[in-house]
Amino acid sequence: MERHFDQELDRVRQKLLEMGGRVEGMIGKALDALTERRPELGKEVMEEDSIVDRMELEIDEACYTIMVRFQPAARDLRLLIAVMKIVTDLERMGDSTVNICQSVEKLNEEPPLKPYIDLPRMAKLVAEMTRESLDAFVKKDSAQATRVTESDDEVDALYRQLFRELLTFMLEDPKTTARALHLLLIARNLERIADHATNIAEDVIYYVEGRDVRHPAHQGDERPGG
Amino acid sequence: MERHFDQELDRVRQKLLEMGGRVEGMIGKALDALTERRPELGKEVMEEDSIVDRMELEIDEACYTIMVRFQPAARDLRLLIAVMKIVTDLERMGDSTVNICQSVEKLNEEPPLKPYIDLPRMAKLVAEMTRESLDAFVKKDSAQATRVTESDDEVDALYRQLFRELLTFMLEDPKTTARALHLLLIARNLERIADHATNIAEDVIYYVEGRDVRHPAHQGDERPGG
Repeated sequence: MERHFDQELDRVRQKLLEMGGRVEGMIGKALDALTERRPELGKEVMEEDSIVDRMELEIDEACYTIMVRFQPAARDLRLLIAVMKIVTDLERMGDSTVNICQSVEKLNEEPPLKPYIDLPRMAKLVAEMTRESLDAFVKKDSAQATRVTESDDEVDALYRQLFRELLTFMLEDPKTTARALHLLLIARNLERIADHATNIAEDVIYYVEGRDVRHPAHQGDERPGG
Repeated sequence: MERHFDQELDRVRQKLLEMGGRVEGMIGKALDALTERRPELGKEVMEEDSIVDRMELEIDEACYTIMVRFQPAARDLRLLIAVMKIVTDLERMGDSTVNICQSVEKLNEEPPLKPYIDLPRMAKLVAEMTRESLDAFVKKDSAQATRVTESDDEVDALYRQLFRELLTFMLEDPKTTARALHLLLIARNLERIADHATNIAEDVIYYVEGRDVRHPAHQGDERPGG
């Protein structure tokens, strides 16, 4: 029974990593669709999103079944709850990536507005945050998870910078407005994905340390923001 | 023991409704801050968001404690899992409402761009969806929850209409660009809040019927989108 329980937990963990890897790959592809102007990559992302959606259901159901069947003790219960929260975030990261592809589709109908430098940088950082948050989960490494939450500030700064830059574009030349708007929506979605990765990292810390860092102001925790 | 368990569950349910009511009130206030140009309401919203954040932690912890202490059976376990998913959505609805207030703050520094008609309409619909989704939860009414998921299409349509309209504003008169952009971000946040209410409604259906409607394409369900 005990061994069987461990095997089931391990299967859930593997499936979660697979789901995370897929979302990370989708983010990379969505940006390649933009920078290399390859619309077929956008289509691939949308197909993969269906797989991610299905994985959410499967993992959720697996966690629930384990809970009912094995009535796990405190620590394992926390693990299962963490997994159920993490898959929700991963699934929504997939949705945001699909939103990015919809903007990319529109953008690829016109000549590029400017060399896309900041967006790929932002996307790379966001994909890294995704990978690191899940890696921290598997390794039960709350220090690594804390670093993920810190990267979120960097992403926010990039977003604000891009916002100002794109607003300037629109003001100086209204012909750029529609394109700038779509670039802004892409940046906004990347920023949103980073928020989800941060949520995952916070769930990891909760799971590893049994303390909640989601809203530090109420916790006497030193991390700013939240 | 049994009675004690029911009391604990009931307390969680009450707390959840209280949290939902607070979020619903915040959405209304954020829009009043815009239409009535009352910056003090924006400040109130931000303060209330701290309370909402704290409530998420408290409810999560209460669910966890009940699970450990009573090892609830299948149906009650599903209830507790549903609650833990719902509070995550409510908390993020609070965050989106704070984002709205940040845009409102910028907008109130300048004369209004146009009479705000669509945004209050959208906000009203979104606040209703929030209330209805929680009401469906308490009443275990999956038909009511299904109606919430249908309202989401209406919100999406309003968002798309506003997007086109604001883009036209920017193209015709670049002086409106900054303001139109902030109005667009407000609409985007309202659309996001509606997504969260839809997620809650889907959790309710899962809890009531034991079937997952989150990604109908994989389920043979007839609901479009997802």
